[in-house]
Amino acid sequence: MFFASDNWAGAHPAINERLSKESTRFAAAYGNSELDRSIEARFNEMFERDVAVFFVATGTAANSLALASVARPGGLTFCHSEAHVIEDECGAPDFFSGMRMVAVEGPAGKMLPENLVERISRYPQDAVHHGRAAAITMTQATEVGTIYTLEEIDAIAKIAKDNGLPLHMDGARFANALVALDCSPAEMTWKRGVDVLSFGGTKNGCWCAEAIVFFNPDLAKDFAFLRKRSAQLFSKSRFIAAQFDAYLKDDLWMGLAGHANTMADRLRTGFSALNSARLAWPTTSNEVFAILPKASAKAAEEQGARFYNWPAPRDIPEKVKADEVLIRMVTSFATTEEDVDQFLSICASA
Amino acid sequence: MFFASDNWAGAHPAINERLSKESTRFAAAYGNSELDRSIEARFNEMFERDVAVFFVATGTAANSLALASVARPGGLTFCHSEAHVIEDECGAPDFFSGMRMVAVEGPAGKMLPENLVERISRYPQDAVHHGRAAAITMTQATEVGTIYTLEEIDAIAKIAKDNGLPLHMDGARFANALVALDCSPAEMTWKRGVDVLSFGGTKNGCWCAEAIVFFNPDLAKDFAFLRKRSAQLFSKSRFIAAQFDAYLKDDLWMGLAGHANTMADRLRTGFSALNSARLAWPTTSNEVFAILPKASAKAAEEQGARFYNWPAPRDIPEKVKADEVLIRMVTSFATTEEDVDQFLSICASA
Amino acid sequence: MFFASDNWAGAHPAINERLSKESTRFAAAYGNSELDRSIEARFNEMFERDVAVFFVATGTAANSLALASVARPGGLTFCHSEAHVIEDECGAPDFFSGMRMVAVEGPAGKMLPENLVERISRYPQDAVHHGRAAAITMTQATEVGTIYTLEEIDAIAKIAKDNGLPLHMDGARFANALVALDCSPAEMTWKRGVDVLSFGGTKNGCWCAEAIVFFNPDLAKDFAFLRKRSAQLFSKSRFIAAQFDAYLKDDLWMGLAGHANTMADRLRTGFSALNSARLAWPTTSNEVFAILPKASAKAAEEQGARFYNWPAPRDIPEKVKADEVLIRMVTSFATTEEDVDQFLSICASA
Amino acid sequence: MFFASDNWAGAHPAINERLSKESTRFAAAYGNSELDRSIEARFNEMFERDVAVFFVATGTAANSLALASVARPGGLTFCHSEAHVIEDECGAPDFFSGMRMVAVEGPAGKMLPENLVERISRYPQDAVHHGRAAAITMTQATEVGTIYTLEEIDAIAKIAKDNGLPLHMDGARFANALVALDCSPAEMTWKRGVDVLSFGGTKNGCWCAEAIVFFNPDLAKDFAFLRKRSAQLFSKSRFIAAQFDAYLKDDLWMGLAGHANTMADRLRTGFSALNSARLAWPTTSNEVFAILPKASAKAAEEQGARFYNWPAPRDIPEKVKADEVLIRMVTSFATTEEDVDQFLSICASA
Repeated sequence: MFFASDNWAGAHPAINERLSKESTRFAAAYGNSELDRSIEARFNEMFERDVAVFFVATGTAANSLALASVARPGGLTFCHSEAHVIEDECGAPDFFSGMRMVAVEGPAGKMLPENLVERISRYPQDAVHHGRAAAITMTQATEVGTIYTLEEIDAIAKIAKDNGLPLHMDGARFANALVALDCSPAEMTWKRGVDVLSFGGTKNGCWCAEAIVFFNPDLAKDFAFLRKRSAQLFSKSRFIAAQFDAYLKDDLWMGLAGHANTMADRLRTGFSALNSARLAWPTTSNEVFAILPKASAKAAEEQGARFYNWPAPRDIPEKVKADEVLIRMVTSFATTEEDVDQFLSICASA
Repeated sequence: MFFASDNWAGAHPAINERLSKESTRFAAAYGNSELDRSIEARFNEMFERDVAVFFVATGTAANSLALASVARPGGLTFCHSEAHVIEDECGAPDFFSGMRMVAVEGPAGKMLPENLVERISRYPQDAVHHGRAAAITMTQATEVGTIYTLEEIDAIAKIAKDNGLPLHMDGARFANALVALDCSPAEMTWKRGVDVLSFGGTKNGCWCAEAIVFFNPDLAKDFAFLRKRSAQLFSKSRFIAAQFDAYLKDDLWMGLAGHANTMADRLRTGFSALNSARLAWPTTSNEVFAILPKASAKAAEEQGARFYNWPAPRDIPEKVKADEVLIRMVTSFATTEEDVDQFLSICASA
Repeated sequence: MFFASDNWAGAHPAINERLSKESTRFAAAYGNSELDRSIEARFNEMFERDVAVFFVATGTAANSLALASVARPGGLTFCHSEAHVIEDECGAPDFFSGMRMVAVEGPAGKMLPENLVERISRYPQDAVHHGRAAAITMTQATEVGTIYTLEEIDAIAKIAKDNGLPLHMDGARFANALVALDCSPAEMTWKRGVDVLSFGGTKNGCWCAEAIVFFNPDLAKDFAFLRKRSAQLFSKSRFIAAQFDAYLKDDLWMGLAGHANTMADRLRTGFSALNSARLAWPTTSNEVFAILPKASAKAAEEQGARFYNWPAPRDIPEKVKADEVLIRMVTSFATTEEDVDQFLSICASA
Repeated sequence: MFFASDNWAGAHPAINERLSKESTRFAAAYGNSELDRSIEARFNEMFERDVAVFFVATGTAANSLALASVARPGGLTFCHSEAHVIEDECGAPDFFSGMRMVAVEGPAGKMLPENLVERISRYPQDAVHHGRAAAITMTQATEVGTIYTLEEIDAIAKIAKDNGLPLHMDGARFANALVALDCSPAEMTWKRGVDVLSFGGTKNGCWCAEAIVFFNPDLAKDFAFLRKRSAQLFSKSRFIAAQFDAYLKDDLWMGLAGHANTMADRLRTGFSALNSARLAWPTTSNEVFAILPKASAKAAEEQGARFYNWPAPRDIPEKVKADEVLIRMVTSFATTEEDVDQFLSICASA
């Protein structure tokens, strides 16, 4: 019953097998192997256009360098107030990009377009004292398990375009969102106006596979240097490539995310059916936020369940009572029906 | 015949097997698993003292963050003029540490103590215009396949101590040097005066395993933040730990480095026996620099050999003639006797 | 009728005269002249203790380098949501310190202690993902013309101490606040717990005189390098020293600030007596925020008055009606009674 | 007899007078006054084309921000091995630009074109490990009192152009070089291929007046933000403008530099005529390097002369004997014939 985070899971057997196979041969280092090249081509296919792809070590690196690649002096990047880039990366985006992250409010982890517009309007392009708007970053799926619909992405993208700002998408849980929206990678990104993407594989069955995807390869002309200077160029880069090779083959990644989302659905359905527990707010990907009696949470923990207690947001629709607790549960490719059912069963009986 | 670099090799089967085993289970993320903890304890044993250990993604990251951890405003770091930190890391050490790398000359890839003393003397602690000496970094084994003897390390360490400067060792090829010197890890590092070490596993059979080791854990009190801010904290950190688990178990790492060095010896012996080729300078680890007839090099390449042509250093003891070429060959855990012998045989017959 | 800002004023004749005198002689450069030394001694007297003083070029530099001097990796600095450091310095504090500015709300431009406590509590010292609390900065006088009372400074300082955080004071309008509080420089700073101060002279009659004052000189041991590396060491530093020489002599600076505050009082009294205009909120230093009929503002502008239209804050006590405008007026040493009276007279008749 | 540096001089009376006049009036802050605008227009005239001009606080700031404005990730800037940017600015150019300064050797303080070509060739545009050539900076007049001839500037500029690199000129002593070459500002800069210039006024009679001049204003489109973010935007910017107003009026600046150069000539002539002293190497601007008997130097110091003992460069044409000392003497607008003659007289009699 490991629901603490999807990054507590290991690696999928197919990915593991591919790594093992890769380990027995020699190949050019620093991203110059044929395998590296072939994965880049695979990204082109996946996104139905020529893209520029760069592997990095962590999701934080993906976000930070993506933003650094579009940075301007005195620039400001707009993000949701609970976004990973502003609250969970120890200032790495600021450090690498030299930009300040400006928090935009909005319910359910999503920037409200009117709030975004209002915030941007405070930082016009000649505001040498305030700093100027320089980028927008959105998280898909969000930190709180919700997903921007295609129409909502359109709305953010329009604001970006109206203001001449590049749009970044933090896709640490890209696959979970994609499966939930049931659309193509292109439809969720550049066809809507996304310029640069953090494409995460680690949380969805790889052990370390993060990529930055530039939909306009011209934007990436300095990026190889930026990455190396940022200490993010793997010598045995092809082991990242190998993970992506297995990850993308026969849509494995979609299957893994589908499974994680299904397990989350099973949790959601289970909680909804319980008298003693309920969903804190609706989610649609692989994160579930539930309100339980403290006794249930304690019982689950004692029986080995792992999850995080979550601070209740101010605008939470369902209030948390004194004898209750709000928890976050994250499912992954490795979550089993048994894990889910056992957890629900503890809640039902506690 | 892959002699281009030791990072062209894959990963050792034992490491691979350990990764596979790790992939099937859940564990705490971001370095908080029991496995992460146990590897930290293993480093204590290996170095015969309490150390602080941090995993990072690349050798560049290890060097850059090690230097960043001892950086001072306006500080200068002294290194050999051909050191990786100054010539091969795209300015990452400067970027992360905010310090300038100052080149110190010396034959055979090693800083000459008198040159180091002279250079440091130009940057006294009150030299607000010039900047001030703030750190020394040495590479063991060096970029050109040589090794600082224990006495030579002593000489550098004494200069560091006399000037109150922290001493960093870039150990991207730590194991190869250690085996060649036939001493303990402690004897090659803190017992001589090294303060912080980049401990590399990637070139010696891991696919991605680099660690920063602080011999005085107090020096590391801010480091967890520095690493996260630098986008170098792996979520599935335990997969690095797992690699080190197999790497260090039963001295696998020493065996792998021993094999690589033996293969280099075989190359050295072979070249010495040839009339048509010779060593450019003496080396003692897993790098061999040889002067060949251009025809031999071409023949080898045509038969699949991979190696780098190397620019001849100014102070090369053996001159390279017009019809000759200087090449660098690097052996690894995966190099076979057959590879070596085939290469030598081509040279003999070309 | 120049009320746009106190930095629209020129320089006081006494300061000018002192500069002229200084211009005729030779002296050591880069802060090494006897005059530089003597001004440092003057700061010791002024603050009734040994301090370390460094001149810089701008208020932005003073704030940015003061924060840089106490910065820690992944550190966060807490400031009021309208503070100059977060909204008016184009990200310079973030750039030089590597820290993120975290906005703390509070009425009248002052951080509310409970809000500050709550914010800090989100970033404990082991929060490697969120970043950690590293400094607090308060502005005295604030951006909106108000002043922290000594008790209010105590409250902020206690929070700093309780959390082990250094406390910085942005004193761009230090003199105006000091005169308003009628206390000694020591009483408004280190006796309350302020660790480092941006001491501004430019807005109060110098043309360019900003200093960073460390109340614990040990905190400043690296600062000479930090300043030079930040391009803030004047070669003819003694011309800054000369300005401070005249500024501090016979308490000129207190007189100048007293005059500016008196002129602001005259404005405040005048607006209060008018039917057609009123104060937007109470202020106590040299800034006045008034609500006028648009017609009055227009008339004043047409007759040469200069001031800024100000966006109405959400929590403004006095609402701005549709035909009204909120303006900011700043007085200085150079403001005359005639200017004030003419402005009020326009308002009375418009 | 103040020959320590030209920045030991005060300010010229005309500049002082202009500052006094400026101090009595109000004007818009942050570079937005009419005076600021008019000086920008003056620079256009001076350089016979539209330029973009920005004032900053120090020569270090001018160099650092000029380089920052053309910086690229992983970029390298080529400069003479004794250049101010690499040896006397405490790493500020590296800090602001994120680039490493690469030393190029050459006699008499000037980069030798073939050395520059060779150095650049080591860092091609795809050298992601080594870093890539990104800028060239030359110092005019140089640190050792020499001057690049127009033909020599052409040679450097051709290399810049051939390699697609922007060319920066550090003109801390621009006027002294210009007078010595007897050409127009345009002829010494953009007509030769200089892209961006640090135009120094401080050493030549201002007390603080440094400007960055972009000959292609398009290069400067982000610069206002870069400057503010770097804490270099003066609030009372017009006091810099006022200094330049007097400085440029009726070619005052040329006269001041002419005087300084003439005083240096007088020193040069004097030393050449002495048996006991001689020039260490030929100089043509306002710096004189002389070899004296230690006794003469001591006698001069005892009689109040100020100058720096200089470390003898390796390639010095005239050797310094055991009882001799190499000294640097810098003349300025404020140097008098009496000072020069007194010094020479001491040497003659010592």
